[in-house]
Amino acid sequence: LSKPSFTVQILGSGSATPTTYRNPSGQLIEFNNAYYLIDCGEGTQLQLRKINAKFQRINHVFVSHLHGDHFFGLIGLLNSMHLYGKKTKLTIFSPPELKEVIDLQLRVSKARLDYPIEYIDLQNKGFNLIGADDRLEFFSFPLKHRVPTCGFLLKEKPGLLKLKNEALAEYQVPLQERNKLKMGEDFISHEGKIIKNKHFTYPRENLRTYAYCSDTAYSPKTAEYVKEVDVLYHEATFENALADKAKDTMHSTTAQAAKVAKEANVKKLIIGHYSSRYRYVDKLLHEAREVFTNTIAADDGMIIRLD
Amino acid sequence: LSKPSFTVQILGSGSATPTTYRNPSGQLIEFNNAYYLIDCGEGTQLQLRKINAKFQRINHVFVSHLHGDHFFGLIGLLNSMHLYGKKTKLTIFSPPELKEVIDLQLRVSKARLDYPIEYIDLQNKGFNLIGADDRLEFFSFPLKHRVPTCGFLLKEKPGLLKLKNEALAEYQVPLQERNKLKMGEDFISHEGKIIKNKHFTYPRENLRTYAYCSDTAYSPKTAEYVKEVDVLYHEATFENALADKAKDTMHSTTAQAAKVAKEANVKKLIIGHYSSRYRYVDKLLHEAREVFTNTIAADDGMIIRLD
Repeated sequence: LSKPSFTVQILGSGSATPTTYRNPSGQLIEFNNAYYLIDCGEGTQLQLRKINAKFQRINHVFVSHLHGDHFFGLIGLLNSMHLYGKKTKLTIFSPPELKEVIDLQLRVSKARLDYPIEYIDLQNKGFNLIGADDRLEFFSFPLKHRVPTCGFLLKEKPGLLKLKNEALAEYQVPLQERNKLKMGEDFISHEGKIIKNKHFTYPRENLRTYAYCSDTAYSPKTAEYVKEVDVLYHEATFENALADKAKDTMHSTTAQAAKVAKEANVKKLIIGHYSSRYRYVDKLLHEAREVFTNTIAADDGMIIRLD
Repeated sequence: LSKPSFTVQILGSGSATPTTYRNPSGQLIEFNNAYYLIDCGEGTQLQLRKINAKFQRINHVFVSHLHGDHFFGLIGLLNSMHLYGKKTKLTIFSPPELKEVIDLQLRVSKARLDYPIEYIDLQNKGFNLIGADDRLEFFSFPLKHRVPTCGFLLKEKPGLLKLKNEALAEYQVPLQERNKLKMGEDFISHEGKIIKNKHFTYPRENLRTYAYCSDTAYSPKTAEYVKEVDVLYHEATFENALADKAKDTMHSTTAQAAKVAKEANVKKLIIGHYSSRYRYVDKLLHEAREVFTNTIAADDGMIIRLD
């Protein structure tokens, strides 16, 4: 059995001022054909159309903070989901004010949505389990920005264990007992003897994790929250030479993003949320790699696979 | 002297559901290098970037109604205008609720704008002069849609008259008197005789007019409001075979748009706001031309010149 797919697709790798070459923040996470959206800058729905992702299959949206380049595209997406026939519940994890913004816009446009929305207010302290479905668990943690901002961590849920055929044969395990083994239970043999689960099953593979940190200044706490994740997306709005500007605006430089990756010992770092001054980001990538080798530079449309 | 330029550039010719080939409603009107924006669907600011139009030079925005495909892009544009250094006043003509929407979004994102905004509330009855600058006069008139919706008419203001050199020589008109003639005053000769202005000036050319009607069902009143304009943009969301759907949704068919153009005896009709079901609009154009020959089909990026 191969692992279920777990991918991150970059919908926008730009920041606040619009450019013709990068969209504002948005990411589509796909796990075993289920969709999760993180941030939703203006034009995100068009990006989703371009990659042919069915809007109405998104059931969870995560909004990191209420700067426009992270949520101005949400109201349009919500309307389009309705027009495309969504009926299933949408859960939105966001700062509490977002509901007010959406409700007002629906009211003035006399729009109705044929699907329910549940808003989950983000807390701005501590590492919190904010929700889960049957595939993933969702966590939030505070970032360090000009307005309350959360990072997100999505963690694969344990699936069924894989069975060792030779052990099943050895104890002649009946079919109906095998599911229990897959779920981690021990086996009681014909003679009443308890045989530990691990005799029948392969060790569980690591549960994959993805963390998203944007927007944020460098904080040593971030590394604690994203410790050893498989893939970390961390904003790198500015090159190192603009560290003062990064500090003033509470954004990160490339070296700061890479420092978090190194401190957290993550497997892979993706940088993004580039200032519009950068048409090409080779230099940013180079700077980050000097601190943390396994870094890639986000680009709109790029897919990163968690293996 | 040639006439000042007066152009309409289509930023979006699509309707509510997003497509990768048409943006939602937006038009950039340019008169002698001044910019006016009509409607502002999601992604309008990106369209403006693509054509290299400087945001901060837009001082007037007209919002026809509060369906999302006509205003969801405004908040992003307002933010970007600030980021690009706009300082001059922006006047927004819109349904009154728009101010509340914009203010709330600015508030939750803790954004400030370094330029003042004046909101002019649209009335939904009668033909009204809603504003003017030194180039154009702006009028609104009611359309027929599911929410309060206005059409707009932009009319060239009379410029200075052009002088006839031979008449100036005949009466030896001093330099300081010539500006008065240009402004339409009569001339008093050396002997105290009044010489009519028209002796010195060429007849005024027609003042050019542009009218925008979207979204709307067919209404016989529309033709009265847009009587004999140079260019009329009238939505044609559906083909004639879908007249029932047009009626239900309070949109127009191609023949209905063309009928308005014909009844109003306009010089040129532009159709647009096509349903997303139409990838190509040849058929829509053909249907409209059967009723009104001088019709063109809007396409994103197209420029229409008023001569």
